[in-house]
Amino acid sequence: MKSHKKELYYQTNSRRAFINITHDVEKELRECGIKEGLCLVNAMHITASVFINDDESGLHKDYERWLEKLAPEKPHSQYMHNGYEDNGDAHLKRQVMGREVVVAVTEGRLDFGPWEQIFYGEFDGMRKKRVLIKIIGE
Amino acid sequence: MKSHKKELYYQTNSRRAFINITHDVEKELRECGIKEGLCLVNAMHITASVFINDDESGLHKDYERWLEKLAPEKPHSQYMHNGYEDNGDAHLKRQVMGREVVVAVTEGRLDFGPWEQIFYGEFDGMRKKRVLIKIIGE
Amino acid sequence: MKSHKKELYYQTNSRRAFINITHDVEKELRECGIKEGLCLVNAMHITASVFINDDESGLHKDYERWLEKLAPEKPHSQYMHNGYEDNGDAHLKRQVMGREVVVAVTEGRLDFGPWEQIFYGEFDGMRKKRVLIKIIGE
Repeated sequence: MKSHKKELYYQTNSRRAFINITHDVEKELRECGIKEGLCLVNAMHITASVFINDDESGLHKDYERWLEKLAPEKPHSQYMHNGYEDNGDAHLKRQVMGREVVVAVTEGRLDFGPWEQIFYGEFDGMRKKRVLIKIIGE
Repeated sequence: MKSHKKELYYQTNSRRAFINITHDVEKELRECGIKEGLCLVNAMHITASVFINDDESGLHKDYERWLEKLAPEKPHSQYMHNGYEDNGDAHLKRQVMGREVVVAVTEGRLDFGPWEQIFYGEFDGMRKKRVLIKIIGE
Repeated sequence: MKSHKKELYYQTNSRRAFINITHDVEKELRECGIKEGLCLVNAMHITASVFINDDESGLHKDYERWLEKLAPEKPHSQYMHNGYEDNGDAHLKRQVMGREVVVAVTEGRLDFGPWEQIFYGEFDGMRKKRVLIKIIGE
């Protein structure tokens, strides 16, 4: 069994943003040479997500509006977590969108359906944050 | 390390439905002969889910009603994604229920608690859609 | 490829609670000796979660209040699942928080970001329930 690990860094210009990281994950997969196995991609921070969905800007605006409805950022005082912080909402939004994805690796490629793309979902950005890729297989 | 891949096809008669796919996954596991490892099961479409919960019809009706409350289908115009589409809600519902499950394989069986069953959750159905099974181990 | 399995038991004194189980998972990882691979941790019950977030008591109170807003426990009669049961809400809450986490194992350690901790989320407690750990790798 082979294994490969890589940390990627992302910094957004806004508090919340979605970044398509599919090509970055594919690059690591190609370089490590694993042909059959599993690829884990997870946010290393607890106010961010990694998830799979469509690369469509209207949908991303729908996610933004919907998450703000389910777990609004303001008023910051509504969250007990916000004693010294202001990111209580980000910890909630991340649970809806998820921490990680596990993707099958088949014949050296991410084994995706027609529209699957991997996104980094940032809910407390404007600083450097990390995503972990771990690929195991043969 | 061995690996095994299978794509399953499902088509529902309604826009939304839950299908118990546990037996289909167990069949693949038996046939591939892997005894110890991990089994990934994921929706290959971004308006569908694979999740684990109870095979109880009342609960499934509760899920349907609850997801319609969290992310209503109509009016279709409420979602920016719905320019040429009408399935914006399905992309949201799928995030709540999740894309995938990873199940331990122990002594050649899915290593489940007493009531765990694997479901395909369809939120934009009435057409043929795929689920991927990837099993790795020995 | 090596694999290791362990079931852990938890019993809470209240219906809902969050328990930090990171040390229990780390102990299993050390004992099995796997250095590179993947570690799956999942609730074996369908009214409980395993998730990764911050070990901060204010945040946990925010989760409690937020989940009660998204899927209130009472009145029990609002859920069709509650014919002979009273835990319909717990099946919904668990979907928001998730069934499982998959964590990279690197150099014999859980490969975590700065604040990541593994929690057992109980939504129908006051009885003995199980969490499964499955580690595969080399």
